[in-house]
Parts: sequence; structure tokens; C-alpha cells
Amino acid sequence: MRLAILGLGLMGGSLGLSLGEGWEVVGWDRDAEAIAQALTRGAIGRGAASAAEAVADAQLVCLAVPVLAVPELLTAIAPHLGADAVVTDLASTKAQVCAWAAEALPRTPFVGGHPMAGSERSGIAHARGDLLAGATYVLTPAATSTPEALARVVHLARAAGARVHVMPPEAHDADVALVSHLPFLLSTALAAIAGDDARWPAASRLAASGFRDVSRLASGDVAMHRDICLSNAAAIAPRLREASRLLADLAERLEDAEGLTRFFAEARRVRDAWLAARYNEAVAPPDA
Amino acid sequence: MRLAILGLGLMGGSLGLSLGEGWEVVGWDRDAEAIAQALTRGAIGRGAASAAEAVADAQLVCLAVPVLAVPELLTAIAPHLGADAVVTDLASTKAQVCAWAAEALPRTPFVGGHPMAGSERSGIAHARGDLLAGATYVLTPAATSTPEALARVVHLARAAGARVHVMPPEAHDADVALVSHLPFLLSTALAAIAGDDARWPAASRLAASGFRDVSRLASGDVAMHRDICLSNAAAIAPRLREASRLLADLAERLEDAEGLTRFFAEARRVRDAWLAARYNEAVAPPDA
Repeated sequence: MRLAILGLGLMGGSLGLSLGEGWEVVGWDRDAEAIAQALTRGAIGRGAASAAEAVADAQLVCLAVPVLAVPELLTAIAPHLGADAVVTDLASTKAQVCAWAAEALPRTPFVGGHPMAGSERSGIAHARGDLLAGATYVLTPAATSTPEALARVVHLARAAGARVHVMPPEAHDADVALVSHLPFLLSTALAAIAGDDARWPAASRLAASGFRDVSRLASGDVAMHRDICLSNAAAIAPRLREASRLLADLAERLEDAEGLTRFFAEARRVRDAWLAARYNEAVAPPDA
Repeated sequence: MRLAILGLGLMGGSLGLSLGEGWEVVGWDRDAEAIAQALTRGAIGRGAASAAEAVADAQLVCLAVPVLAVPELLTAIAPHLGADAVVTDLASTKAQVCAWAAEALPRTPFVGGHPMAGSERSGIAHARGDLLAGATYVLTPAATSTPEALARVVHLARAAGARVHVMPPEAHDADVALVSHLPFLLSTALAAIAGDDARWPAASRLAASGFRDVSRLASGDVAMHRDICLSNAAAIAPRLREASRLLADLAERLEDAEGLTRFFAEARRVRDAWLAARYNEAVAPPDA
């Protein structure tokens, strides 16, 4: 399969690294240094001088850029796609991307893609061939998709070691607002509040693994986070308001021993049940 | 040194496991099974039938129980402490604990202790001999402390491989409200909100490493979390209100590209600077 990866950062690079025999991968990035690194690391077999050149012979084109960089790239490649080409992407939200693709590429099947895997570190230097292994890889066919196009992208996701989950783009966006976007916003809020606190210079010396893990996503890519907010505001806003209400309510209930016990026990039940289902991890029984 | 550890869970067990030559450790727990496990794992050299028996010959006594279990234990051991004994603890908040100790043990030096290390998994089964290695171990001398008593507890903390940090109990409680308590409350809030959301049954299948890490502390010990809230409400409440305000404000700013960029970039700067200082970890330059 002749694949073009446009954008050679963490995700595009990891996708390239995960593919084995049978894949002929050409890569392009606006940063020539990223192309050179992707070649050195073996994430791509050949570098292209432009996105247009990269897609010219491709049977499958994968856009691996932040959401708001997608429209310009679609416009740039549109005149250069082959008659048999299928286009997909790896961006974090899917409804706008699928709508843009259907408009910019009316005659080319588009299947939105989002591997539920990542890292707070961006760039080709952090790409890993096993990043997508075992991950849930969501595919959201656009109005222009066909069964054959979907099959081609399923083939790509499985070749990367991921488990495919097909759903409508709007359902994807609503779901990830809860399980992906709310987490990174809470994580970022923690780092922002800490940095603004008068005690932070002293208190930071006591911060340990709990702070490290809960704030991890605050180290994530700024443009990616911004574009997610801009492209999925309608689904994110109600979750932020719910979190705001819950924390304000908690602040008033810090002396309610029974209420706190119920709250912590229920949160633990939800998290441990998810963990057991997701990772088949043995979870210790609640000790409260 | 003859040490008595009262409470053989994650922290008491890990302390025992971390000590080498020169430590004669007797342990007690209200759960006889935990004593048996601590003996089997080598966290203690001898089990005691009661807290009173455990402390009888001890030069150093360490209470390793949740905050609100401390007063009862202090009362139980008070008549049985030797004239030369020093008492310390591992509980999560320090102002109330130090005040209780000064009242219950007016003639026994007390030095509050809090190793900034832990796990979301509780119990002796999860104890590890390296849990305290390299951790910051806060010591908060009570009104009854003496330089000799402090030196004895410093010796314990260093024997466990930790780095000692001495400060007043009130300063400790204010600092950990920001860097430890706010993180576990945000983590718990994420799990609670997720579990309550109508989309959770479907969305949970898309939750991945971001959700896993940000919600990690929601799997923590329910009694420990409750006792932290009850004993440090005054320092925790303003941080919860600040988080509530910030999230409500964010919900209104999800279409402000420049504001979002500034917010994410600043949070990233704070977190990466902390990470570099704390772990000497090389941090990638911001890419926004």
C-alpha cells in the first residue's frame, strides 16, 4: 500500500514507525528537520518536498496535523489526489474535520480517524512504533466515504496494531469531550492554579507523584489543545460547567464526613470498574 | 534503634521494608492479617498483640494511620510509652496531629512526619521498600519536640532513603492543600463526573492513558481522602473555589483562540519548569 503521511510529529511519526512489510510510506512536514528525522528513524521511506508531491501517487493519505491545520492542507492536496485515493486523518475532533473534507474533496472518499493514544510530549523525537499498539482507533466515515474506503483505513489501523471502533463523528466528539478533553482541561487547570498561587514557590518543593500525574497533560501540545477547544466547544462547555459546580459544592462540604465518604467511594468505584474493564487489571477491593 | 510501627498499610509497611541493619522493628495493626503479611514480607521483625505492647520498649514510635485514627491511638499508647520514647507519624495533614499529640502526650516529644510519596493502592500488599527513596519527607516538630527528638526522626527518614524537609505544621498543611489535596480532588471529580454522565457507558470505551493518569488518585484510599478534607478544610476550600472559578471561566472562553493559547502555554510552562527542577528531566521546548 502506498501511504502518504502529512505531518511528521508524535502521531504521524508513530504511525509510520508502526507499519511493517507491505507499506510504502512517503512523508511530508512543513518542517524539513522533521522530515530528516523521520527518515533517519525509519518512520517514512521517502521524504517529499511538498504535500502535493507526497500525495501524487498515494492510495491512502493520512493528515497528521492539529485540527485547525486540516482545512488548508485539504485545499493544498485536493488538485493532486489520484482518482483511487482515500484520505484519512489523525486529528483530535472529527465533526468539523469530516465536514471540511466532504466540502474540499467532494470526489475523494474521506474517513476520519482518531487513535486514542498519545503522549504529553510532541514531535517526531517522541514518536514510538508501539504507541498505537492495543489502542482504540476510532474511525468516523464522512458523507463521502465508501465501504471500500473504510476497509482501506481499517487495514491501516490494524496494521498499526490498533483496535478499530467505527462511529459517527458527532458521537466521537461528544464522547471524547468527557474522557479526553475534560481530563486535559482539569490537568491544565491544576498547573495554572498552582503557578498562580502565592505558596507555589515553596509548595512546589513538596509536589510529588500525585501532582506529576494529574498535571501530566498540562505539558501537552498547546496548539492541539487550543484547536480541540475551538472545534468541540459545544460538547466541552457543559462538562466544564459540571466540574465547576461540583468543585464549588465540594468546597462547602469539606466537613461532611458521610457525604465525603460517599463521594470518594463512588468515584473510586467508577474508576476501578473502568480500569478493570479497560486493562483487565486486578483491582484491590474498596477498603472504606 | 527499636522502632514500633502502628498501622501496617501501604505507608507503614513501606517504611518497615525500607529499613536495613540496625533497626529492630515491631509492628501492630488492628487487622491481624496485615501483621501476618508484614512479617512474611519482612516489613517488621516481630508482631505485637496490641499498640500498647508494641510501644513498651520502643525508642521511636511511628503512627501510620489516617489522620482521624490518630487521637484514639495516641490515647491508647500514652500510658505505655518509655521515658526516652519519641513519637512520630505518617499522616497526611500535620497541624491537628501535632496539636493532638502535644495534648495527649505532654511529656513525650512528638515530631510530625509526612513522606511525600504514595500510591493510589492501599494496604500492605502494595508496600514497597523503595517507596520513600528520594522522596521529600516533611518533618513538623510539635510544641513538645526537642532537638534530640528531631534528630532521631531525621535518622529514621534518612534510613528510609528520603530527603528531610523541616517546616511548621501549618505551612505544611497550606502547601499540600495546593500540591497534593487539590490534585486528588480534581482527580476524584473527573471520575465522579464521568460516572454520572449519560454518555459514560459508551464513552468509557474511548478513555485511554490521559483519563487513566488524571483520574489515578480517584482510586486512592477513601478514609485517607475523607480525613484530609476534614482536617485541612480551611486550606483546601479556597483552592477548590479557585478551580471552580477557573473552569467556569474557561467554559465561556472556548472560542477565544488567543486566550486559550496563553492559558495552555502558561500552564505548560509552570508544569515543565517544576518537572525540570524536581526530576532534572529534559523538557522539550514549547512548540506553540
